[in-house]
Amino acid sequence: MLEKSLTSIIKLKVRFHECDPLNIVWHGNYLKYFEEGREAFGREHGISYLDARAKGYATPIVKSVCEHKLPLTYSDTFEVYTHFENTEAAKMIFNYKIFKSGELVATGQTIQVFLDENRELALNNPQFFLDWKKKMKLI
Amino acid sequence: MLEKSLTSIIKLKVRFHECDPLNIVWHGNYLKYFEEGREAFGREHGISYLDARAKGYATPIVKSVCEHKLPLTYSDTFEVYTHFENTEAAKMIFNYKIFKSGELVATGQTIQVFLDENRELALNNPQFFLDWKKKMKLI
Amino acid sequence: MLEKSLTSIIKLKVRFHECDPLNIVWHGNYLKYFEEGREAFGREHGISYLDARAKGYATPIVKSVCEHKLPLTYSDTFEVYTHFENTEAAKMIFNYKIFKSGELVATGQTIQVFLDENRELALNNPQFFLDWKKKMKLI
Amino acid sequence: MLEKSLTSIIKLKVRFHECDPLNIVWHGNYLKYFEEGREAFGREHGISYLDARAKGYATPIVKSVCEHKLPLTYSDTFEVYTHFENTEAAKMIFNYKIFKSGELVATGQTIQVFLDENRELALNNPQFFLDWKKKMKLI
Repeated sequence: MLEKSLTSIIKLKVRFHECDPLNIVWHGNYLKYFEEGREAFGREHGISYLDARAKGYATPIVKSVCEHKLPLTYSDTFEVYTHFENTEAAKMIFNYKIFKSGELVATGQTIQVFLDENRELALNNPQFFLDWKKKMKLI
Repeated sequence: MLEKSLTSIIKLKVRFHECDPLNIVWHGNYLKYFEEGREAFGREHGISYLDARAKGYATPIVKSVCEHKLPLTYSDTFEVYTHFENTEAAKMIFNYKIFKSGELVATGQTIQVFLDENRELALNNPQFFLDWKKKMKLI
Repeated sequence: MLEKSLTSIIKLKVRFHECDPLNIVWHGNYLKYFEEGREAFGREHGISYLDARAKGYATPIVKSVCEHKLPLTYSDTFEVYTHFENTEAAKMIFNYKIFKSGELVATGQTIQVFLDENRELALNNPQFFLDWKKKMKLI
Repeated sequence: MLEKSLTSIIKLKVRFHECDPLNIVWHGNYLKYFEEGREAFGREHGISYLDARAKGYATPIVKSVCEHKLPLTYSDTFEVYTHFENTEAAKMIFNYKIFKSGELVATGQTIQVFLDENRELALNNPQFFLDWKKKMKLI
């Protein structure tokens, strides 16, 4: 299945300092979990922050969304599924799902753009990204 | 103008530890700015986390969105506009706008629900919230 | 060797959001690494935050120290050595060493006290802690 | 009094996301408060991170210490006193005191060194720092 090649899964554990006075993970920390998922995806599939950087591009986040279904509490173990969503636009879109014991805890999305060495927005997909897509059989 | 009574404005300064290797504020930190804006709104208008808590309710975030138009860099001063969006549902919706020198830097939204003392979701608006809405001439 | 039974080692990777504009891990984040080391020690040796909590005690940090020898940069892999230091006082002392490729990156220490259910400072070692020390052949 | 010219005071408010499940500020967040104090000192006295940077120097922290006397809880207002400690060594030493309603909450210290543009440790005080000391009547 093609899908599978575009997903990365990591297992994490809630740390004490990530929890708030409600004894649950503070909502903003999910963006850190998404980032860990995205980084794992990048390392696994050869499209990491450092790969982009080596080609002269920064890939800042321009949009992030997180929806919470269930809380995570201290010492919970959970899985972050990071899935690459293919699009023709000069963007990187990742969708996330967090599961705890098989139950859906949260979903999310991040959208990144490409900035060249002058910090100008790339309107077209950079060559290295097109090459990667070809390798992944996405174009 | 009614609008104005539902908006709160705070002025913040980017701190060193909020910036990432791109020398801009790490995207997840905007949720901290939104929280500061929401807390300022709550204190200003009498609908804070502690007000809800005193009535036996927790108000966890179930959704957050952030869109970035321009970066914030170290030592930038900026303003967070927090605006309460009225809805009939048993939810608190806040919309955020961040400006730097008059330019729009980011927009965002958070949605909160009410959990009672048994951590059960309140399907109807809690009385204290209805009272507050009346006071604010929203119902 | 007794020493070994009092040390716990974890392997971590520097995450993007932990790095600052100098492109190194922001110094305050080392306290998070120490916490991860301490938590791993607690789980491994049966003296975790949750174990203390189950016995009615909170164990807040009253002192922390961190000294930096070398920087950690994005995507570095490193090891946190957490070592329990035995003392007669009603305190938990942990010493930390962080290594990257065999080189010492940082050292640190945290000191925790015991607060009972009324948040009063325990002047003597709680029974559960003495029991644990006995089990560990420390007294 | 000379002392006074070497101290900077800021007023802060505990934010929700800074508190942990014990409902107190997580100990590592005090290093953020110290940083805010240090930055305020730098802006007030012309010796900020950006001033050093403009002269070609980075000033990483090589040691930090924090001792806690009393907890800070959500929505507490407190003051951070940042005091510059003069030393002949090529270092910047700051001492911190945090007060809440006149009571001492925490004390701390940070030590910074100077790295030149090649990230080499400066063994002697950089000229811009000596100039600043003269201006402050410290040498």
